[in-house]
Amino acid sequence: MAIPYFPKFMGSDKSSISPGLLAPSSLPLSSPIFTQDDFKKAAAYKAVEFVHSGMVLGLGTGSTAKHAVDRIADLLRQGKLKDIVGIPTSKKTYDQAVSLGIPLSDLDSHPVIDLAIDGADEVDPDLNLVKGRGGSLLREKMVECVCKKFIVIVDESKLVEFIGGSGLAMPVEVVPYCWKFTALRLQNLFEESGCVAKLRTVGGDGGDEPYVTDNENYIVDLYFKKDIGDLKVASDRILRLAGVVEHGMFLDMATTVIIAGELGITIKNKQ
Amino acid sequence: MAIPYFPKFMGSDKSSISPGLLAPSSLPLSSPIFTQDDFKKAAAYKAVEFVHSGMVLGLGTGSTAKHAVDRIADLLRQGKLKDIVGIPTSKKTYDQAVSLGIPLSDLDSHPVIDLAIDGADEVDPDLNLVKGRGGSLLREKMVECVCKKFIVIVDESKLVEFIGGSGLAMPVEVVPYCWKFTALRLQNLFEESGCVAKLRTVGGDGGDEPYVTDNENYIVDLYFKKDIGDLKVASDRILRLAGVVEHGMFLDMATTVIIAGELGITIKNKQ
Repeated sequence: MAIPYFPKFMGSDKSSISPGLLAPSSLPLSSPIFTQDDFKKAAAYKAVEFVHSGMVLGLGTGSTAKHAVDRIADLLRQGKLKDIVGIPTSKKTYDQAVSLGIPLSDLDSHPVIDLAIDGADEVDPDLNLVKGRGGSLLREKMVECVCKKFIVIVDESKLVEFIGGSGLAMPVEVVPYCWKFTALRLQNLFEESGCVAKLRTVGGDGGDEPYVTDNENYIVDLYFKKDIGDLKVASDRILRLAGVVEHGMFLDMATTVIIAGELGITIKNKQ
Repeated sequence: MAIPYFPKFMGSDKSSISPGLLAPSSLPLSSPIFTQDDFKKAAAYKAVEFVHSGMVLGLGTGSTAKHAVDRIADLLRQGKLKDIVGIPTSKKTYDQAVSLGIPLSDLDSHPVIDLAIDGADEVDPDLNLVKGRGGSLLREKMVECVCKKFIVIVDESKLVEFIGGSGLAMPVEVVPYCWKFTALRLQNLFEESGCVAKLRTVGGDGGDEPYVTDNENYIVDLYFKKDIGDLKVASDRILRLAGVVEHGMFLDMATTVIIAGELGITIKNKQ
């Protein structure tokens, strides 16, 4: 369903809405006043409407999920939410949540989660995702695979025809030991899709210091020229490679995707 | 084929054979002079007969593989082997090989290996293995899955009717983050097989300090009361759990298994 892009979908508490989003209802939807970050925030705030007091919440990582965590903290401070337990999906989100005073726990203590809210790097028409360009794919997947409900929040630039279709990275977390060997095997696995595997570095393409995940592993980014075919088959082929810890395809996990863009907010539910 | 248990299967170089194995040919095969370690050594020495000069060799880890590494070093020192490049499967084997002067490299430089020789904790009738009770399953699997030939060396106590049939551990390497959660999910995965999952500790059952692998991960040992059914299905189910790095089932990997026991040496080749 498409929802018109008006402040009301930010919830009734307008005081906490960014001024940039408090546009008069007469403002054209395509007004340049809306930045990509405004869209991210709009999707995040909409998702937080699904949060109820007493929930165990998976707290996502990244520039979109950050807005959801901020919003949850706002509502806790205002007393509109109570008894929330947050399960952060990265050290970064842990730090953010601690600084905002959100009570936290972990999967060992809370192996079932009511709702997780997180961003994504790609969303395909079946609501399969690519995640982990921010580097937190493993903990995100551990948390989000045990959620009763998993709401994904994105701006419209993240929609793709097929996984890998953005031409950007599909990340794979690998053990540091002989990572070149693992990268080569990953690249060979998807040779027919024109796959190129690159180690993620701290400084980007120019750097040579490996990016290290929260779990002390490396990330090999896979770039595809073509569709990689059956995603579940591709997933198993990747996971069977010794040296691979996890990959960034989140298949059949999202229950709802909230997309914010110039035409408003669209909510897609898993069929 | 079964080979009678006589010193000749140790190769022609008797000078380097343990005195315990230099039994006169009239000695009963079941003589108590043969310890389990003698059997391990006999299997290891037999395997090293398949090593030729110029080979890139995967060097296994554990009490049986150690004898093979020792034997390779002996033959190098004697000039009977030349131009060997060893790829160690653990830091421990790396240290052993360095101390013995075996030239070493890694998978990044040598992504194809001519022959690997390693022990196993269980061998089933189809030559599927359980490995990793020594904790080196990940590097062993990385090396041994790219071998042209993989010879497994065991004493007869390692033969089982089915994987898990020894009642001993099938190890799973997991990321330390929320390992209890991962252990619980592993146990639930094989609930019907009466699975019990335990964190491996440094001091064994009594200790509480987690055993840490060469890759800075933990090991969750799975104990099964019953057969876990289709092993490839079980493998994929384990690998699909976010938080799992690798498991100790080595399926369809061994090309030859050399078994030493009281009745001599048996060599089984993959059909």
